[in-house]
Amino acid sequence: MLWMMDFTPQLRHDSDIPLYRQIFLHISAQIRSGELPSGERLPATRELAGLLGLNRATISAAYEMLETEGLIAGHVGRGSFVTGTGARSPAAGLNWSSLLDRPDPAAGRDTLPRQTISFATSRPSRDLFPLDEFRATCAAVLERADLADILQLGSPGGYEPLRRYLLDDARRQGLAGPNDDVLITNGCQQALDLIGRVLLSPGDTVAVEDPIYPGLKNLLADLGAQLAGIPVSAEGLEVPALARILQRERPRLLVVTPNFQNPTGATLPLAARHALLDAARAARVPVVENDPYVDLRYEGQSIAPLKALDRGDGTVLLRSFSKISFPGLRVGWVVGPKPLVDRLRQAKEAADLHSDQLSQAVLLEFAESGRLAAHLARMLEAGRDRLHATLAGCRDLLPPGARWTTPEGGMNLWLRLPEPLDAAALLGRAQKEGVSFLPARYFAVSRQDPGGLRLSFAGLSPPEIRAGLSILARIVAAELGAALRDDEPVPAMV
Amino acid sequence: MLWMMDFTPQLRHDSDIPLYRQIFLHISAQIRSGELPSGERLPATRELAGLLGLNRATISAAYEMLETEGLIAGHVGRGSFVTGTGARSPAAGLNWSSLLDRPDPAAGRDTLPRQTISFATSRPSRDLFPLDEFRATCAAVLERADLADILQLGSPGGYEPLRRYLLDDARRQGLAGPNDDVLITNGCQQALDLIGRVLLSPGDTVAVEDPIYPGLKNLLADLGAQLAGIPVSAEGLEVPALARILQRERPRLLVVTPNFQNPTGATLPLAARHALLDAARAARVPVVENDPYVDLRYEGQSIAPLKALDRGDGTVLLRSFSKISFPGLRVGWVVGPKPLVDRLRQAKEAADLHSDQLSQAVLLEFAESGRLAAHLARMLEAGRDRLHATLAGCRDLLPPGARWTTPEGGMNLWLRLPEPLDAAALLGRAQKEGVSFLPARYFAVSRQDPGGLRLSFAGLSPPEIRAGLSILARIVAAELGAALRDDEPVPAMV
Repeated sequence: MLWMMDFTPQLRHDSDIPLYRQIFLHISAQIRSGELPSGERLPATRELAGLLGLNRATISAAYEMLETEGLIAGHVGRGSFVTGTGARSPAAGLNWSSLLDRPDPAAGRDTLPRQTISFATSRPSRDLFPLDEFRATCAAVLERADLADILQLGSPGGYEPLRRYLLDDARRQGLAGPNDDVLITNGCQQALDLIGRVLLSPGDTVAVEDPIYPGLKNLLADLGAQLAGIPVSAEGLEVPALARILQRERPRLLVVTPNFQNPTGATLPLAARHALLDAARAARVPVVENDPYVDLRYEGQSIAPLKALDRGDGTVLLRSFSKISFPGLRVGWVVGPKPLVDRLRQAKEAADLHSDQLSQAVLLEFAESGRLAAHLARMLEAGRDRLHATLAGCRDLLPPGARWTTPEGGMNLWLRLPEPLDAAALLGRAQKEGVSFLPARYFAVSRQDPGGLRLSFAGLSPPEIRAGLSILARIVAAELGAALRDDEPVPAMV
Repeated sequence: MLWMMDFTPQLRHDSDIPLYRQIFLHISAQIRSGELPSGERLPATRELAGLLGLNRATISAAYEMLETEGLIAGHVGRGSFVTGTGARSPAAGLNWSSLLDRPDPAAGRDTLPRQTISFATSRPSRDLFPLDEFRATCAAVLERADLADILQLGSPGGYEPLRRYLLDDARRQGLAGPNDDVLITNGCQQALDLIGRVLLSPGDTVAVEDPIYPGLKNLLADLGAQLAGIPVSAEGLEVPALARILQRERPRLLVVTPNFQNPTGATLPLAARHALLDAARAARVPVVENDPYVDLRYEGQSIAPLKALDRGDGTVLLRSFSKISFPGLRVGWVVGPKPLVDRLRQAKEAADLHSDQLSQAVLLEFAESGRLAAHLARMLEAGRDRLHATLAGCRDLLPPGARWTTPEGGMNLWLRLPEPLDAAALLGRAQKEGVSFLPARYFAVSRQDPGGLRLSFAGLSPPEIRAGLSILARIVAAELGAALRDDEPVPAMV
């Protein structure tokens, strides 16, 4: 096992390639080159973990990949042995792992925990879907005179009646001027992806809120972008920090969710919006206003969107039907300056020709018939109850020292457990006792917030929220008691 | 107008940036830098075209862009004048053109000509859409017990009942083994895009058929890939040429449409399929089998797909509902080796979370209810009539010297006009007389085929086809007569 001598120096803890994969790549290269011949025994996972100072699960993951590749075989009680060079037969030609072996942008991607009472998913409750009204909407679409056009190949810009409806609506709201245009996308996620594809090159920096929702982190990582995180307080993104980052890191793009930000629920006040626009304009950095939650304001006054406040043309606005109607229908839209929208339309055509037209027609009918407004009124009522149940539960049940944001809308709030508790360390016990949530590390860009977690309340009824928070509060109180009794200092991070 | 002195050397005819855009960029830089001051008169388009040896339309396009940007203004009869530096107001901060000013991958993209009797679009006829059966299908979906799940946020792999249906179907047909998996995409276009995103880095070479459909050219150009074109004959891609390219250009990927290739209509015979797989395997190059037309075989025997013939795991198969049902519903799927499909699923999630679930559920119901099979039978009957009308029209009407492929299915055939005719040069007259088509240059990778054009027949009735071909044949005969009478040699390219 001399080969381990030169092994340790190869591991790079700062790499984008996760450690298990680095180990897999190293060993598989040694096997394929013949340095590790067939029949050679690999060290036990426990042994190698000890030698490398790593978690045993990391080594196991690497060995599993080697086994999947046909490079090693495990024999219970005897260890793992090199079995060959991975070619299953002369005919089994391709080594997909090596073809795919650029740094895996998604390898660090987190998967969601399983749920019981789940505060983990930021989506509307399926119990609120107005199924009969959806059926009536579809029935109306099926009687449309242009049904065959809906079913025929469409335009990359979107189903024209919907596109025109959204553009007119944006104009009425002061969100679109004569130099703006609308492009329909598969939700905000695709809009962000297309914007990244036309504006970013690998290595470019993008300024984002920190914490931020994982879908945006993954997307930007896939595009090879670097993230510069701007701290978010209960009042939204901190503009002075943004100004420093704009100056220091020269990002190519700023992505901001001004209303009911995911994960914090924070909303940017009007003065901060003006200051943000001034800073971005001074730095000549375009602003992507990701605004899927705008219509989910349960209380308080609406604040003008950046797109309306921007006296220049530096803002592009993203909106979506998915948070206010049916997320399974993937329809969002971009309102932005024509030169940008033109290019996005080309990128959209290359990416998937155009968005699904049946859903576009259904959502247009849902909106034009007034059913969307009626549904939204019911969603607002339910959302208000759920938000209040969450805030009341936090207030009534959590031990002193816990802090949380108090959003006026959206689907999420941010809870910070009393020090020295670590939300990720608590999660296992919470799941065993029937509650789940996403701890801060799923959302972190560069700032660690070990006590932080996201509570997504929109998918749960008030009694479920109360019950879930009771369980969580009990665990928090118990762990807090144990931690404070404990003489050993508790590590700030796990 | 001294500035023109240093203008010519800047133009690069071999650049990815089209000439009109190079001219635009050059002049706009001179205006913004102040070298060309406000009030300066630009040369007339005719004059500049003559000086630069370019087409006048190229100059006009550049001037139009300058005018759109607010940099120049045209006065009829007096010419174009520099009006400013393009900043509309102090508040109008961003210069989107310069932010977007990486070589525009789509700038060279061709737009489709307008239509009367249009042989230009490769899509099914809307007259054939079975609207009542579509309505009945939707009605059945709306009664499904899992309707709320369809409307809720879904999985990146696809709507699970459809995904399982397609996987089971692929297994039954010998297209999926135990190491294969299925991912649902927004049609084949998105499947190609996702494959490019996970397997290609900018500068990688992709081997494709030459001619190839523009959607694939655009997509690969957007990803920064280089294309290596493999000649296509009436018998499909030429495998000896492929073998040479695999050896010489070391492409990272081969994309092939073995059935009724777009634009040629050519189908790859069985022996060539085996030879292609051998060559790709030897070169360890993955094969993307783009197969949206497979079910549109109007006559002759089906040939086994590459995915079924591949004894290794080097092939990934792309199929779609869009050519056989309703293209406005964007649903296709990938059948491929698990490691690849896993990564594609991650890329899909980053790109747009998942495909629209309403359309997935509708197409599953359309297939499971037997309505798809019934519709396909009618499409095959109509397609056969249309193909025969096209072949008969070519045979009966075109002058001697014309050559065309004789596909057994699909939507397109390739027509080569008698020498020395140029299809692109003919198009203007054809459009004036009420017929349109796409000339070879829309499809060319590197081989020029000036006499070539695509006839897309699937969207036209047999009488329309006959009428359109009559007009075309008359024009061809007239132009041919003129060309042969003419002493001047006709340029091979326009």
